[in-house]
Amino acid sequence: MNKKTGGLAGLVVGDTAISTVGIEGLDLTYRGYSIHDLAEQSTFEEVAYLLIYGELPNRSELQAYQEKLMMLHELPDEIQTLLEIIPVTTHPMDVLRTACSLLGTLEPESAHYSQQEIADRLIASVPSMLLYWYHFHRDGKRIQTGSNQPTIAGHFLQLLNPEKMDETFRRAIDISLILYAEHEFNASTFAARVTTSTESDFYSAIVSGIGTLRGPLHGGANEAAMDLIQLFKTPEEAEKGIHEMLNKKMKIMGFGHRVYKISDPRSDIIKTWSKKLSEKTNDKSLFKISEKIENVMRSEKKLFPNLDFYSATTYHFCGIPTAMFTPLFVMARLSGWSSHIIEQRKDNRLIRPDANYVGPAPRPYVPLDLRD
Amino acid sequence: MNKKTGGLAGLVVGDTAISTVGIEGLDLTYRGYSIHDLAEQSTFEEVAYLLIYGELPNRSELQAYQEKLMMLHELPDEIQTLLEIIPVTTHPMDVLRTACSLLGTLEPESAHYSQQEIADRLIASVPSMLLYWYHFHRDGKRIQTGSNQPTIAGHFLQLLNPEKMDETFRRAIDISLILYAEHEFNASTFAARVTTSTESDFYSAIVSGIGTLRGPLHGGANEAAMDLIQLFKTPEEAEKGIHEMLNKKMKIMGFGHRVYKISDPRSDIIKTWSKKLSEKTNDKSLFKISEKIENVMRSEKKLFPNLDFYSATTYHFCGIPTAMFTPLFVMARLSGWSSHIIEQRKDNRLIRPDANYVGPAPRPYVPLDLRD
Repeated sequence: MNKKTGGLAGLVVGDTAISTVGIEGLDLTYRGYSIHDLAEQSTFEEVAYLLIYGELPNRSELQAYQEKLMMLHELPDEIQTLLEIIPVTTHPMDVLRTACSLLGTLEPESAHYSQQEIADRLIASVPSMLLYWYHFHRDGKRIQTGSNQPTIAGHFLQLLNPEKMDETFRRAIDISLILYAEHEFNASTFAARVTTSTESDFYSAIVSGIGTLRGPLHGGANEAAMDLIQLFKTPEEAEKGIHEMLNKKMKIMGFGHRVYKISDPRSDIIKTWSKKLSEKTNDKSLFKISEKIENVMRSEKKLFPNLDFYSATTYHFCGIPTAMFTPLFVMARLSGWSSHIIEQRKDNRLIRPDANYVGPAPRPYVPLDLRD
Repeated sequence: MNKKTGGLAGLVVGDTAISTVGIEGLDLTYRGYSIHDLAEQSTFEEVAYLLIYGELPNRSELQAYQEKLMMLHELPDEIQTLLEIIPVTTHPMDVLRTACSLLGTLEPESAHYSQQEIADRLIASVPSMLLYWYHFHRDGKRIQTGSNQPTIAGHFLQLLNPEKMDETFRRAIDISLILYAEHEFNASTFAARVTTSTESDFYSAIVSGIGTLRGPLHGGANEAAMDLIQLFKTPEEAEKGIHEMLNKKMKIMGFGHRVYKISDPRSDIIKTWSKKLSEKTNDKSLFKISEKIENVMRSEKKLFPNLDFYSATTYHFCGIPTAMFTPLFVMARLSGWSSHIIEQRKDNRLIRPDANYVGPAPRPYVPLDLRD
């Protein structure tokens, strides 16, 4: 696709009732609820339920949902076998792409196993997949993948390092999962909808989502932001370094957004948490470096930080390895992808665009022995 | 997406130099060469080379390419382990989706392992993946996945059943691979391009393609066509049955096309082969039933058969189980997907459309204990 027509930028390609950035493009709502209210007052499980089942759960529905997710943490033996043969050097997104694909062969979608059941199963088991693989290859340990944690954030932290379980860290991750849960027709969600549009199965659509989120222009941005921040030891170094990078026309990850033009409403929320955790962990440099980078980007490029930028340090302060940042995005976005797959199926039409041909004009065939 | 705006039908979303149906939408060319010339005079390996490397190979290039593919047939041990744990009841497309995803962890893309190398490896090894899995679960046999067959069609037939190797069957499959190799911005190719547009890796894009092709509105159509044809014992039964299905407004698979409006130029070519193989195998009914269905669809619905319809019987006469029809489509389309991934990367822009919001208006948050 060429720059002009490619990218479908600004092109409305369909309807959705799931989320919107609003008429002015300044807010974000999930099924009508402001992201500010959701981040402040609700939990990721409430948000996942809202997205997948259409309304916020009441107390008994929420309790039943959390109990259900807790029952779905454990992995089939075949998934464990797979995770053991995937090399330690693998990109964790490739681990999740492959393990979710295999799960689709072990627990296939059918008339008796509905799309919502699969969505819940994936949300409950993806943290287990990631951390089983991680501990097996890092420590040679086969961990138990069940936990008694009633939240996905808690389950993730428990499996990552039970000794570091901490309610502030848990809530920070919980909120980041809320913020990452859903974002309209972003590239990975759109890919999941294209896959769904051929009437393929639920897992195929999720696997397309994971593979698409993997790219540094999408989910990979929070990892790239962390790498950037860690390049510098002081705010002064960062100021100088970012200016140099801008002079060399290098891309600075974690700033600007295809849809938001003035600011990303999620950024202020996660920045507050990054600051809070910086204080809690006695961080002396990373948060200040981040703010300096933000200031330079605002003054030099008129660009604002997006969700990915302060998510990086937030995760880092929680003790999460950088390579797990994009997988955390998967854990959250599984809820958004699922709701879009369900929505696409309700009124489906094959997504099959046209192309503008710019190749060779019709030419006569040249038999093999007459070719140069 | 709603019916009106959804599906991107007729909407030009980008440029391609790979294939076109021509200004009148009546022909199909790969890089300028007519599909009629290619099917008559070339081989799938020449076509794959044309798509991936940009020009038809000369004799020494073709020989080197075929020798290279022959060296790439065999599977890593880890892939064999995976294929052994994937249940026998699995949809073969899920087998390929998972095995290609795992291959991406074992032989990842890198500065030292280029996209063309990966394309060639996938084309050479996907038949091996399918048939290793098939024989292990069907006969409890661990087959050798190498072969001395210099063509993909021959390699596939050799691994399927070496006793049934036959040059007419081989050439029929070879031609069907040519016809299925590439088709502009079809849904699976578009999905692969969306995945590529986030700068994700080659395997992620291929896996999106496989998962998208899996659906019955796309690659699954040739299997559905076979199931349809086998519903009937005689042409008379078929005539009556199709009329009944049309009266019940049931969808008849293998007819019409999103892009072609008058006919599918590939259909005549594959129909000739279906007829030839019908005679060779002393088929008394299936070809005649197919022609009857074609006639009813033309007279009642003004719909023409697309490539999938006569591909079904062509494969069937070659002794190929119906569940392998869509995987054969994968073996062919890997070449088209690969060329589109390479093209997308040359001038990439993130593919991220907008949506029309039709959901709830902004609403106040209701705390958990106040919900109904």
